[in-house]
Amino acid sequence: MNISTIPVINVLRSSTSQGWIEQALSNLEAILLDHSHCERKAAGVALNLMFRYPSNSDMVRKLTAIAQEELEHFEQVNQILEARGIPLASLSPAPYGAGLKAQIRPQEPQRFLDSLLVCGLIEARSHERLGLLADNLPDLELAKFYRSLMASEARHYGIYWVLAHTYVEAEVVAKRLDELAIVESELLANLHPQPRIHS
Amino acid sequence: MNISTIPVINVLRSSTSQGWIEQALSNLEAILLDHSHCERKAAGVALNLMFRYPSNSDMVRKLTAIAQEELEHFEQVNQILEARGIPLASLSPAPYGAGLKAQIRPQEPQRFLDSLLVCGLIEARSHERLGLLADNLPDLELAKFYRSLMASEARHYGIYWVLAHTYVEAEVVAKRLDELAIVESELLANLHPQPRIHS
Repeated sequence: MNISTIPVINVLRSSTSQGWIEQALSNLEAILLDHSHCERKAAGVALNLMFRYPSNSDMVRKLTAIAQEELEHFEQVNQILEARGIPLASLSPAPYGAGLKAQIRPQEPQRFLDSLLVCGLIEARSHERLGLLADNLPDLELAKFYRSLMASEARHYGIYWVLAHTYVEAEVVAKRLDELAIVESELLANLHPQPRIHS
Repeated sequence: MNISTIPVINVLRSSTSQGWIEQALSNLEAILLDHSHCERKAAGVALNLMFRYPSNSDMVRKLTAIAQEELEHFEQVNQILEARGIPLASLSPAPYGAGLKAQIRPQEPQRFLDSLLVCGLIEARSHERLGLLADNLPDLELAKFYRSLMASEARHYGIYWVLAHTYVEAEVVAKRLDELAIVESELLANLHPQPRIHS
C-alpha cells in the first residue's frame, strides 16, 4: 500500500489509521453508500450557508460552484451504486459530523467563522480519506474515480479557508482553526464501529 | 402586451392579474433579487426531499437534475444582478411559500405527496409568471432570458407531477392537487404589497 504518495493537507492534526483503511476496504458497499450521502450533505451545507449569508456575493458565487460540483459527484457516486446493484438507503451517521457541528458557536460573527472552518476541515479529511481509497482499492477503475475526486476536495478546503480569511483576520482564523482541528482529530481517534467515510 | 401567447399549465386555478405585472415591471430590481432567492430555494427544496426520502433512486436522480438546473439559474440570475449593480441581499418573503408549506400534512404518506404537489404548483406558477415577464419586459435581452427559463419551470412541474403519480394512485393525486391548487390561487388573490415573483 503506497500511502506515502498521498498529499496531506497540513491542517489535519492526525493521519487516518490503517484500521480505517481495512474497515473501509472490507465494507466497500457501506462506504460507497455513505459517500453518496456525504456529497449530498456537502451540497446542502453550501446551500445553507448561502441561505444564512445571502449578501456576501463573492461567497455566494464560490458556494454555488461548490454545491454544483458536489451534486455532480453525488450523481456520479449514485451511478456507481446503481451499476453495482447497491440500493440507495438511509444510513445512520458516524458521530463525526454532529460532533463538529456542536463546535460551531451560536453567536455571530463566531458562527460564520466556525461554519466555514468546519466545512473546510471536513473537506480536508475527505480529501485524505478519498486519497487513501484511491491508493488502496484493488478495483482500479474505482480507485481512479476516487483519485479524480481528491483534487476537488482539496480545492473546496482551499475555498473555505480563503473565504474565512476574506472576512476574518488571519490571526483569529489561525487560532480557531487550530482549536477545531484538534477536535476534528479527537473525533476520529477511535474507529467508529460502523464503516463510514468519517468513521 | 401579448399575454395570450403564454401557455398556461392547466393546474393553476387563477391567472395572474395585470396588477402583478405592473407591480413587477415597476419594481424590477426587487423582482430580480427575489428571483435569485427563488432559484436557490428551489434547489434547497429538491435537496431536502432527497434528504428525507433517500431510498427512492428514480426520484433522487430526477431531483438531483432539478437541483443542478436551479443552481445554474441561480448563478445566471446573480450574474444579471451583478451586471446591473444590484447587490445580493436578504428579502422578506411573500406569504405565498409559507402558506403553501402550511398545507403539507405532517404524517406520511400524505407529507410525501403534498411536498411533491406543492413543489409542482410553485413551479407551475413560476412558469406562468416568468412567462409574463418574458412577454412584458421592455428589455429584450432580459425578456429572452425569462423565456428561456419558462421551459425549465414547466419541465420541473412535469417531473413533480410524474413523481407523484409514480408513488401514489392517480385519483388520490388528482383530488389533493385540486385542493392545493385552490389554496395556491387563494394565496395570490390579493396582490402582496411587496413586489415578489410570488406576490
